[in-house]
Amino acid sequence: MAQPDTARLLIACDDQPGIVAAVAGVLADHGANIVSLDQHSTDSEGGRFFQRTVLHLDGLAAARTALEESLTEVADRFGMEWSLHDASRRKRVAIFVSKYDHCLLELLWRAQRGQLDIDVTMVVSNHPDLAESVRSFGVPFVHIPGTDKSEMERRQLELLQGNVDLVVLARYMQILTDDFLTSLEAPVINIHHSFLPAFIGANPYARAKERGVKLIGATAHYATADLDEGPIIEQDVTRVTHAESAAQLQSRGMDVERLVLARAVQWHAEDRVIVHGRSTVIL
Amino acid sequence: MAQPDTARLLIACDDQPGIVAAVAGVLADHGANIVSLDQHSTDSEGGRFFQRTVLHLDGLAAARTALEESLTEVADRFGMEWSLHDASRRKRVAIFVSKYDHCLLELLWRAQRGQLDIDVTMVVSNHPDLAESVRSFGVPFVHIPGTDKSEMERRQLELLQGNVDLVVLARYMQILTDDFLTSLEAPVINIHHSFLPAFIGANPYARAKERGVKLIGATAHYATADLDEGPIIEQDVTRVTHAESAAQLQSRGMDVERLVLARAVQWHAEDRVIVHGRSTVIL
Amino acid sequence: MAQPDTARLLIACDDQPGIVAAVAGVLADHGANIVSLDQHSTDSEGGRFFQRTVLHLDGLAAARTALEESLTEVADRFGMEWSLHDASRRKRVAIFVSKYDHCLLELLWRAQRGQLDIDVTMVVSNHPDLAESVRSFGVPFVHIPGTDKSEMERRQLELLQGNVDLVVLARYMQILTDDFLTSLEAPVINIHHSFLPAFIGANPYARAKERGVKLIGATAHYATADLDEGPIIEQDVTRVTHAESAAQLQSRGMDVERLVLARAVQWHAEDRVIVHGRSTVIL
Amino acid sequence: MAQPDTARLLIACDDQPGIVAAVAGVLADHGANIVSLDQHSTDSEGGRFFQRTVLHLDGLAAARTALEESLTEVADRFGMEWSLHDASRRKRVAIFVSKYDHCLLELLWRAQRGQLDIDVTMVVSNHPDLAESVRSFGVPFVHIPGTDKSEMERRQLELLQGNVDLVVLARYMQILTDDFLTSLEAPVINIHHSFLPAFIGANPYARAKERGVKLIGATAHYATADLDEGPIIEQDVTRVTHAESAAQLQSRGMDVERLVLARAVQWHAEDRVIVHGRSTVIL
Repeated sequence: MAQPDTARLLIACDDQPGIVAAVAGVLADHGANIVSLDQHSTDSEGGRFFQRTVLHLDGLAAARTALEESLTEVADRFGMEWSLHDASRRKRVAIFVSKYDHCLLELLWRAQRGQLDIDVTMVVSNHPDLAESVRSFGVPFVHIPGTDKSEMERRQLELLQGNVDLVVLARYMQILTDDFLTSLEAPVINIHHSFLPAFIGANPYARAKERGVKLIGATAHYATADLDEGPIIEQDVTRVTHAESAAQLQSRGMDVERLVLARAVQWHAEDRVIVHGRSTVIL
Repeated sequence: MAQPDTARLLIACDDQPGIVAAVAGVLADHGANIVSLDQHSTDSEGGRFFQRTVLHLDGLAAARTALEESLTEVADRFGMEWSLHDASRRKRVAIFVSKYDHCLLELLWRAQRGQLDIDVTMVVSNHPDLAESVRSFGVPFVHIPGTDKSEMERRQLELLQGNVDLVVLARYMQILTDDFLTSLEAPVINIHHSFLPAFIGANPYARAKERGVKLIGATAHYATADLDEGPIIEQDVTRVTHAESAAQLQSRGMDVERLVLARAVQWHAEDRVIVHGRSTVIL
Repeated sequence: MAQPDTARLLIACDDQPGIVAAVAGVLADHGANIVSLDQHSTDSEGGRFFQRTVLHLDGLAAARTALEESLTEVADRFGMEWSLHDASRRKRVAIFVSKYDHCLLELLWRAQRGQLDIDVTMVVSNHPDLAESVRSFGVPFVHIPGTDKSEMERRQLELLQGNVDLVVLARYMQILTDDFLTSLEAPVINIHHSFLPAFIGANPYARAKERGVKLIGATAHYATADLDEGPIIEQDVTRVTHAESAAQLQSRGMDVERLVLARAVQWHAEDRVIVHGRSTVIL
Repeated sequence: MAQPDTARLLIACDDQPGIVAAVAGVLADHGANIVSLDQHSTDSEGGRFFQRTVLHLDGLAAARTALEESLTEVADRFGMEWSLHDASRRKRVAIFVSKYDHCLLELLWRAQRGQLDIDVTMVVSNHPDLAESVRSFGVPFVHIPGTDKSEMERRQLELLQGNVDLVVLARYMQILTDDFLTSLEAPVINIHHSFLPAFIGANPYARAKERGVKLIGATAHYATADLDEGPIIEQDVTRVTHAESAAQLQSRGMDVERLVLARAVQWHAEDRVIVHGRSTVIL
């Protein structure tokens, strides 16, 4: 998985002719080889352009500043938002959890096995229950209890600011405030235990049972102040029958939650996700 | 597919000991062989018992009255709702349609090919567009136009009452009144073009695109006066990406609609579906 | 998950009239309530009958002997193979493993969380690598190294005979001999890392890549002397693309292996699986 | 679906730096806007580079010759295989069929409804049975009976050469000779009624039943002289149970065949498929 001298370039801007050529020209001028390129334009009026480019450049560290200068020039010309990510620098991730361990352990396990390209730098919880499980992976577990949300969030921000590139809510049963999300200055991925927008809110499995649905699902999305309304990264479902109780639906759903969250975090780790309004582009 | 001397017995009652034995005993007494038996009890307090039995009985037609008398006796003892269906008597079905043809043609096609055990006795539409397609299958097409709903429903009921065992709304873009559903005295299956309860109501594909979901689906359910709230018979989804427009989502969704509706109608045709409150048991 | 006074009755015999009634009659006579009943008959000439019945009987332990006597009488009459399983007695399972940990940990994890109704009594391996992971679950890890297969199997049988109800090969990279399987007197479930019968044998992921398939899968089956030919319990697949290397296919496939094996073991644990020639009936 | 002034450029060559930039530069020089660009490089030694570019160029018809000259120059420099397809020119397709109608009707139906971007110019069959169904779509049906394969293929080639861009074998139960495939000078897509490479050859559904698989599938691939071994374009599966007979597996499989073939033909119609040895790249 180690990819020395490899970078990922993400671009978003208004659609207009010549973008691919201009960017590819800059890369060629700097001696970079394009390993892969995915591009998408929305087809509506005043379309939007998105591009992910994986490039290989010998001596990336030394050449990066010059490359960024050239990219800045092109970006200014086309009005681009852009970011350049060193593929050898894994994202530092904090996982928030309450008492459910299935999503947490799935992430820790995949990271340990090399199936998830992140560094889990800490696990934060409002309950002490999972300390031992977490520490057995060699990962710090920080218990921040309390009922005063603003005090809890203050302590969380002290831990996180500057130290993490991503926060993952792995069934963290608390709502984060708008202030927290703004102050964090890092994206937050949440797993919701239903196929959104069905069963927004609490107790989705009980409500799925009550409504008699034939499939249950899970949704990974970027957390926003508007609960359960953030841009969806990944979803999946599994078939259920009338013979399964609400408790069994929950157990079945936990398997979907684990895999959906793991995929969403991996795609984010690979710089594949660009937010576009209330939705995402996965490149 | 022809199953002479075969019947399907559906039972629903409060759960209590001895039901299976009592029914199986009656069947054995009458010389019937149990071809298959599926049974389900809800596990909540005051559980409910459901059973579907396929039985073979030589000379069913002649023996039926005596068998029904014995079943009535057992049913009275256990407080059962029950029905006995001759498997050789295919259900007579009317299909309601507006302008979309994909669900309609899927049903006609499967019925013609012997993949759907129904007799389509008529197609009813508020638009004349699909007359030729329908008649090429040798099926009558009845055009009932109009803007006066009560007049339209009066004419529809004249056609249907006593003539059909099931009405299928194959993307019929009109709401049926509570009066109509009551007077019809036959079940009605509707196909909704979303994964209910997500995107209840109109324009689900446009709203799915706007919300950025990663899966789109369809739901077949029994129609009730409360629109989109009837007991769900079958659902399915298909994976979509950001690269697909709302029009492409609609096209992709049409494939799901076709298959979901065909499965739901086939299960109903095979007497596999028992309504239980707002949900269904599929045996 | 605790189910006191609950038993599962499995029956297989040649199809003939009156089986369900006879068995249900015996159960009713002994005061047992049928919680669920699934029955299947093959439709070919000289059909075969299969039935799984979950029954509740107050004071099961005390009443069991009398019930078994009555069942023996019915079984003799119909030529049944049958078995009665106490639902409160979890099966004792040994897991065999080599170096891959993903299937092993999935089973240990689910068992610990109460999602898998087995007692893992030991893990046996020809490599020492996974000792610590296993013991952290409080499960004994027995390292049986060696190159002399008959000596290894002799030691394995000493450990297993009388001590386990099931052996699970969780990516155990050794072939078991016919003698071992016969002497063990317990069923063995294996996970094969392909969608059998495609890619029987070694290196299925590399061969799947070479062949350009669009789906990769995994298969859980009962182990027989004829490698990869045992009765299939469960299979599943996942979609892959040209963009994924053989190593990535392997990583993707590991997720399928985990879930397929976990489902197969759970179904076996719930006494849902009856072998029928080279295939299985799942009730 | 009409896309005036739009073209699709397919490129395959040995991987080397500067390809994307060179091609994008040519397109920009000619005033073409890149609507979408997908690119893939194999990661093995001596990797291979594939690119599909959708471009918009006002006055494409008039500008095409000059563009092709510039592309030829770049192609010579990089050793590219390439082709430029006018998106407004739908491919002319002949469908070969025997007696099964499900795949044929699915294609005709989608083409009629605008869900499949092809022109079906003729249907060729060795049986007369489906003439009426085909002609009701306004498509010519040509019956070429016979037992002399070389005479049949001679007549087929007379019909096809120069008249079609693609031949689709929609359950055509005859083997085409190597000579035919060579002389045709157009690609041929076949639908195989199993999840290849499982159940290569005849009667896959009966063999799937016998082997007890839990999923059945279908495979669309380019036909080659080596039967069932051509590059796979698309595959899918559906879950089945022990309760389904071989005939029911066949009926279930027909639904998979229809959808898999329709997807493969659509991808080919959109110039998304590049053959790479025994596999395909779908862009």
